Amino acid sequence: MTTKKLNLHIENTRRKNGISHILPPQWAAACRRHRALARHIGKVSFGWDGDILEATLASADLVIGLPADRDRLAIRAPRLKWIHSTSAGVDGVLPLDWLPRGTVFTNNSGAHGHKAEQYMIMAYHLLNSRMAAIVTNQHARRWEALYSPSITGMTAVIVGLGDLGEAAARAAKKVGLKVIGVRRSAQKNRHADRVVSYKHLDKVLPLADFVVLAVPLTAETRNLLNAARMDLLKPSAGVINIARGPVIDQAALEKRLRSGRLAGAVLDVVDPEPLPAGATLWSAPNLVITPHVSCDDGEHYADITIDLWFENLALFLAGKRLKRRIDPKLGY
Amino acid sequence: MTTKKLNLHIENTRRKNGISHILPPQWAAACRRHRALARHIGKVSFGWDGDILEATLASADLVIGLPADRDRLAIRAPRLKWIHSTSAGVDGVLPLDWLPRGTVFTNNSGAHGHKAEQYMIMAYHLLNSRMAAIVTNQHARRWEALYSPSITGMTAVIVGLGDLGEAAARAAKKVGLKVIGVRRSAQKNRHADRVVSYKHLDKVLPLADFVVLAVPLTAETRNLLNAARMDLLKPSAGVINIARGPVIDQAALEKRLRSGRLAGAVLDVVDPEPLPAGATLWSAPNLVITPHVSCDDGEHYADITIDLWFENLALFLAGKRLKRRIDPKLGY
Repeated sequence: MTTKKLNLHIENTRRKNGISHILPPQWAAACRRHRALARHIGKVSFGWDGDILEATLASADLVIGLPADRDRLAIRAPRLKWIHSTSAGVDGVLPLDWLPRGTVFTNNSGAHGHKAEQYMIMAYHLLNSRMAAIVTNQHARRWEALYSPSITGMTAVIVGLGDLGEAAARAAKKVGLKVIGVRRSAQKNRHADRVVSYKHLDKVLPLADFVVLAVPLTAETRNLLNAARMDLLKPSAGVINIARGPVIDQAALEKRLRSGRLAGAVLDVVDPEPLPAGATLWSAPNLVITPHVSCDDGEHYADITIDLWFENLALFLAGKRLKRRIDPKLGY
Repeated sequence: MTTKKLNLHIENTRRKNGISHILPPQWAAACRRHRALARHIGKVSFGWDGDILEATLASADLVIGLPADRDRLAIRAPRLKWIHSTSAGVDGVLPLDWLPRGTVFTNNSGAHGHKAEQYMIMAYHLLNSRMAAIVTNQHARRWEALYSPSITGMTAVIVGLGDLGEAAARAAKKVGLKVIGVRRSAQKNRHADRVVSYKHLDKVLPLADFVVLAVPLTAETRNLLNAARMDLLKPSAGVINIARGPVIDQAALEKRLRSGRLAGAVLDVVDPEPLPAGATLWSAPNLVITPHVSCDDGEHYADITIDLWFENLALFLAGKRLKRRIDPKLGY
């Protein structure tokens, strides 16, 4: 056990939504939940958009939240041992050439699964129930009986089986779907009926009633669901993206929704975000766009974040390997 | 067992959606599923909007589907022993003064539970996820991060615990809600954490995060969720109606949605149906209107209907009391 107390800087940014801000009352409440661990923390500072960053970095051992200015961190923060992102996706700060050697970088994977599962349950039903068309009719004041079949027994192909992909798989099983998982290795997963590796993606896409994108955005996953792969899907299939906008060829998707080549889509992430008012995507038929809110608990996101961080703090103090470490080579 | 074969007339109406039409191929497939029972059926006729009604009624023992003209049925159909409605709600043919004495009248309750459960799962999440506002934003091409809390642990008050109410309760338990059922008698139900009788409705409404209407429309349930009862609800509560439009004071509901006194509503039924294009209800905020499709399997409704009917035919042939009999006094 480390005996010297550790200084912690918490860096918030107004650009990010308030639900992710870690404020003194939330920190204090978390310390009450994790009393023994919290005793190892010395000074705690709360900064906003870099306002006190230079003064605190000099003595900070730990940082929660990514400073906008990450230039020469090794010199500015000579004691920095661990930096934690309050997001799960860290594609915005890749490549990790700014990360000082010997500093561990963790993300917030694990904070999103519970809410993501709820969103995914809704998303499967939204697609099966033709809700995009029904809501479009509502806006046009048009009553048209659009019936839908039972969802039971349909098939979800879930690409990525991390925190979000597992949530999508749990949701799918609860909804009564067959689950085919696609991941780097074909390693079994208890929420999937079958798991295949990426090289078999094109073989399972034609089986999908629902395709779920739940991968981190990396050089490898950019444009993963491209036009050619979309054309492997059944015309009755629906696409759900809870990953990052650029993992789908958005223009190709829009074209296929407009032509009826694809039955529908639910996109929680798009490219770019926020989607500009002039984007034609807004009005594509059979599409539901949610504003990147699928996986964040609007009430307890910060609390969940600090709890995950404390879990890692216990490992840190014990000199063990932290969970949710970003691999600089893989980028997630 | 009856030895004489029974003549069956199947009356379809073009006014009802095609999913409820029972056509010769569906009848033939059902007879293959129920071979032994089907042997007791003699002549089968398929009529449309009364076209062959007079000719077939004279010799019909059994009728599926309600003839539009029900005047003097006892004289026109002297052998009629049993008439079956392909709908669950029979409020459209109340009072039952047209029903010949000695003719049993059954409804299609039981055909809707499986699909209703799926709709209800979606409806709870639609309300909790603020989807009406998100979709309105989409139509206005507006990106606004509307976050929502986890739904786990919230409370549903479900009024009516028949086929639909039980489906709403099963859905609620799957979603992670506490369930308070309200019905005629406070008799326990395995899908509800607690059941109270109607006289305690006003005591449980203030506990609801979701209020679900799942009652038949009768003189007793008309206007059941009136303005005074709405004002017992938390402002954060959402209302879901899968029963019949008139069980809610629709004008009072619209007013409370517009003023923000209620957080949202999902209505699968409204008054009147179809809702006229000029109705102001279409554009009430935080409201999702679906066109009376929540509980009907768009693929297998007719098959499910005939299977339920054959289940009753077995009872009929054995001289036993049929299931799903309409009580002329209660009206359901």
